[in-house]
Amino acid sequence: MRVCRRATFNSAHRLYRKDWSDEKNQEIFGKCNNKNYHGHNYTLEVWVSGKVNEETGYLIDLKIVKDLIKDEIIERFDHRNLNLDCIEFENLNPTAENIVMVSWNLLRSKLDKSFGLSIKLWETENNIVEYDGN
Amino acid sequence: MRVCRRATFNSAHRLYRKDWSDEKNQEIFGKCNNKNYHGHNYTLEVWVSGKVNEETGYLIDLKIVKDLIKDEIIERFDHRNLNLDCIEFENLNPTAENIVMVSWNLLRSKLDKSFGLSIKLWETENNIVEYDGN
Amino acid sequence: MRVCRRATFNSAHRLYRKDWSDEKNQEIFGKCNNKNYHGHNYTLEVWVSGKVNEETGYLIDLKIVKDLIKDEIIERFDHRNLNLDCIEFENLNPTAENIVMVSWNLLRSKLDKSFGLSIKLWETENNIVEYDGN
Amino acid sequence: MRVCRRATFNSAHRLYRKDWSDEKNQEIFGKCNNKNYHGHNYTLEVWVSGKVNEETGYLIDLKIVKDLIKDEIIERFDHRNLNLDCIEFENLNPTAENIVMVSWNLLRSKLDKSFGLSIKLWETENNIVEYDGN
Amino acid sequence: MRVCRRATFNSAHRLYRKDWSDEKNQEIFGKCNNKNYHGHNYTLEVWVSGKVNEETGYLIDLKIVKDLIKDEIIERFDHRNLNLDCIEFENLNPTAENIVMVSWNLLRSKLDKSFGLSIKLWETENNIVEYDGN
Amino acid sequence: MRVCRRATFNSAHRLYRKDWSDEKNQEIFGKCNNKNYHGHNYTLEVWVSGKVNEETGYLIDLKIVKDLIKDEIIERFDHRNLNLDCIEFENLNPTAENIVMVSWNLLRSKLDKSFGLSIKLWETENNIVEYDGN
Repeated sequence: MRVCRRATFNSAHRLYRKDWSDEKNQEIFGKCNNKNYHGHNYTLEVWVSGKVNEETGYLIDLKIVKDLIKDEIIERFDHRNLNLDCIEFENLNPTAENIVMVSWNLLRSKLDKSFGLSIKLWETENNIVEYDGN
Repeated sequence: MRVCRRATFNSAHRLYRKDWSDEKNQEIFGKCNNKNYHGHNYTLEVWVSGKVNEETGYLIDLKIVKDLIKDEIIERFDHRNLNLDCIEFENLNPTAENIVMVSWNLLRSKLDKSFGLSIKLWETENNIVEYDGN
Repeated sequence: MRVCRRATFNSAHRLYRKDWSDEKNQEIFGKCNNKNYHGHNYTLEVWVSGKVNEETGYLIDLKIVKDLIKDEIIERFDHRNLNLDCIEFENLNPTAENIVMVSWNLLRSKLDKSFGLSIKLWETENNIVEYDGN
Repeated sequence: MRVCRRATFNSAHRLYRKDWSDEKNQEIFGKCNNKNYHGHNYTLEVWVSGKVNEETGYLIDLKIVKDLIKDEIIERFDHRNLNLDCIEFENLNPTAENIVMVSWNLLRSKLDKSFGLSIKLWETENNIVEYDGN
Repeated sequence: MRVCRRATFNSAHRLYRKDWSDEKNQEIFGKCNNKNYHGHNYTLEVWVSGKVNEETGYLIDLKIVKDLIKDEIIERFDHRNLNLDCIEFENLNPTAENIVMVSWNLLRSKLDKSFGLSIKLWETENNIVEYDGN
Repeated sequence: MRVCRRATFNSAHRLYRKDWSDEKNQEIFGKCNNKNYHGHNYTLEVWVSGKVNEETGYLIDLKIVKDLIKDEIIERFDHRNLNLDCIEFENLNPTAENIVMVSWNLLRSKLDKSFGLSIKLWETENNIVEYDGN
């Protein structure tokens, strides 16, 4: 059994490595490397797995997941520039893959160990990434 | 290989345990405990897994799945009050988790044993639950 | 120029007139007349028309519209039974048409007269209603 | 009769007036004023009205509209910072209202005068703006 | 006030005029002219305008609109080849514009004259057409 | 970790086996057997699994997946009649199950062996199929 809470956040970013030349950044990341940044409406699905509590009928109260997403993800990344405003990406390229790994780790560290965790992130309606810790 | 049929139904419900005090119900279930009920447009995805029949090219004729959903789920829950009209929830709190388990059991009992079954239920566009029997 | 804020709310309702016999209610409203209620996830689009303020570049700050929807619509109708919990429908059948008219009047009375107002309500993904005061 | 072509673009922006103090920008635009920018997946619907050509059965070949959107909107705004990279917003606050007016003017100047034009822009799934030149 | 019923149908078609050469058909209609046809999932929104009946609270019972769409549109066009199976397109190129005009006329002729009618057709998620008789 | 690229294509098809009688085809495939074909807007999600490259932060550059989908799927199936124009279905019934298996094999043969592959295909908004090679 898995339950999910969906949320969205809006961020600027740029695909870029400080330790690469401008030419190499441009060659590998193309238009995603625009030096003044571009941005996305990210949609996040947070899936929590476990057993249903027979008393409440909840696997987990989704309000807990909603608040967790708010505290750990929305407050950090929404209306931010991921490269400039977020310490998590100070030395990490904010690709969708890295955003989803960072987000998973942030949520994992606050979620009770009895639950499994898998998350899914839409960067655009055509680009999606999914991560469960492996 | 898995195939899926999607359907929707509209029901009223209330999160509530008869054997709890009003105070405890309110504390645990909050606004979902509103004594006069509220409701949802539920969206259900029914995923059937198995081998493709080489003759027909079907894993299963989705019309069979459509009819199964109609007979077992829509006829039971659509335009109903889950707490008052549905014997399945007479003594079971109609959380999304319990609805999905009840639905899975109803579908499982009518679906040929050679097929696997997993179902996904949207309570709102932000709250989702998935169940495969475990 | 028009700007829109979208919101959702979840309510129970029943199509029913107290001054009609049960038979007539059933004949006219069919399964929507289920005596124990059913429910929906309503999606509301609130469209405000007017001139763009050249200083701010806003027609209206959408946070004002978001708060207006919260105060006038969400607080009143979300997680409520429209027939039993909402004085607006004490003597008014809560059809999508009547919900949209009531909502328009509630929003209109609080929105500055310099703005035009039109609202759109999804009862299901297939049933929609739109109202602009006429 | 109206026909529509939908497209998307991803941009960074910041709501900000150079001629206002930081305090005033923050007071009026709040989190949308984040100095390092944030961003969106913008979805654009371009609606062209007119008469259907009886020979082709087209009001306008939508490939013309698709190319027009690509040349005038996507090439200008996609993977750009609207404030820093786009001359159109050098002295214009890139609110959704101003983006839609700028886009309408860009499209209008290239679209044959025999056609009417109305455009709709989603900044997020909850914030929308529509403009037809008035 | 306007109310809407949404429906879908799946058809094959080809953009083609019998009285044009193959070369001209190819030049004007490109890949949409593929001689063996291609196809779409069409989504139709049927919007009916009028006054709300104070007794029922309905502008029109949407079941009437649902049945009208089924009888006039789904039965005619769903799982059909518009060019070969549908007399309406025997001598009419099945562009989205022509499909929407034919559909509007079919629905208009069966809908009580006291109602207004406007319809919207999605050929793909990016190509849309709207028609109200003008 | 999995990443996904979404794409769409529009095709005509007919469910039909040459080696069956017309009666048997009609009995098994019903309206999907319409002799002049019908069609769909197919939506395809291509999910690639593997390890994230620590240098780029990409599991795979999604532009590679986009181009692969274009070369192997869109060029072959978009604006085509699957039964008549596509050698892959010359002797294979183009059910969603068979389309997804053919597509998986086409993509698998061109995708580096270090990656896992799973694909999901929507035939309509209600009919979906998923395949990962098993």
